[in-house]
Amino acid sequence: MAFVYERDPQAIYRQSYATIEAEADLAALPQTLRPVAIRMIHACGMTDLPGNMAWRGDPIGAARQALAAGATILCDAQMVASGIIKRFFPSTDIRCDINAPGLADLAVKLGTTRSAAAVEMWRDVLAGSVAVIGNAPTALFHLIEMIESGGPKPAAIFGFPVGFVGAAESKDALIAADLGVPCLTLSGRRGGSAIAAAAINALSSEELRGNL
Amino acid sequence: MAFVYERDPQAIYRQSYATIEAEADLAALPQTLRPVAIRMIHACGMTDLPGNMAWRGDPIGAARQALAAGATILCDAQMVASGIIKRFFPSTDIRCDINAPGLADLAVKLGTTRSAAAVEMWRDVLAGSVAVIGNAPTALFHLIEMIESGGPKPAAIFGFPVGFVGAAESKDALIAADLGVPCLTLSGRRGGSAIAAAAINALSSEELRGNL
Repeated sequence: MAFVYERDPQAIYRQSYATIEAEADLAALPQTLRPVAIRMIHACGMTDLPGNMAWRGDPIGAARQALAAGATILCDAQMVASGIIKRFFPSTDIRCDINAPGLADLAVKLGTTRSAAAVEMWRDVLAGSVAVIGNAPTALFHLIEMIESGGPKPAAIFGFPVGFVGAAESKDALIAADLGVPCLTLSGRRGGSAIAAAAINALSSEELRGNL
Repeated sequence: MAFVYERDPQAIYRQSYATIEAEADLAALPQTLRPVAIRMIHACGMTDLPGNMAWRGDPIGAARQALAAGATILCDAQMVASGIIKRFFPSTDIRCDINAPGLADLAVKLGTTRSAAAVEMWRDVLAGSVAVIGNAPTALFHLIEMIESGGPKPAAIFGFPVGFVGAAESKDALIAADLGVPCLTLSGRRGGSAIAAAAINALSSEELRGNL
């Protein structure tokens, strides 16, 4: 049987975005967050995400400005880095330290997870960066603790850890903390690398121009 | 402020899995699918996944047998390949053709998406493989069409396209088709690379031994 389905990538994007705009409550979000919410919803198939979106300041403006000035994107998980569309950010360094040499030893030394230890490895490059947590609650907690204890500040934080142990708590802590860093998160258990990468992809000029 | 949170990876897994077992309706699933459902839920934070899980035959047994015999894992998206834990499958070839040379031209020639064209590139290696679709409905539709038109059969199909245009339809088509290939899918809009990679990671002996 030959199936009848849309095969044109542009048409697929247009139809997807139209469905999302029809079903999702985007009106509750600031204008700058709407295209980001659309892309996040597109990545997970769930139109009720806006009700869980939480933010401080203008993470989109801050991240776009930082990227335009050459900021690095720091990711906690290789899946997040893989999900960022490289041609959207042709001159941006996208870094993930989860497979860095010495990481396992550092994690043992710090008494924490490899994901949190990988965040510790960002200390020299964190200032002015765009930090993206798409997997580990411990990574987001460690990032908040580093900044609260006087460490360098990224330009913006996109915090989307997922799951059952510390995910909701770490995202609540991000919003509650007064870090002086614009941030975007998704309260509750949902999150993950696809949603995190989608939020970053939505920052690109290509995306904003509809040039997918 | 120093936060109080679980930092021990083994304890995090144990607590996560205990929460999932307490909240998710796993009893409706065959025994072989329960550890897979747990890992999929762990990856997305949503305990209601079992109600949308659909399958034909024994995809877990078929895939594990194929992997033990040296089967390749074929992924439609780089994020899926990135999410598969390499040390769980030390001697397995994990392949994704989305960045293959000539793919864009092939997509134009076939009048379809790059994701579907990448599946076409699997034709010589598809027989006996473990095929994983974690992103594109067009990729799953193309895979079904290839097999229905007499093409080679993988050992098992894990079909988790996500989104608003063709995702639910492609997954319904997978279950409705009588391909003679064991398969696992998630009906509706939800899916994506994290859930797909989680299903594959659950196939490993390491996972089954609880050796995370």
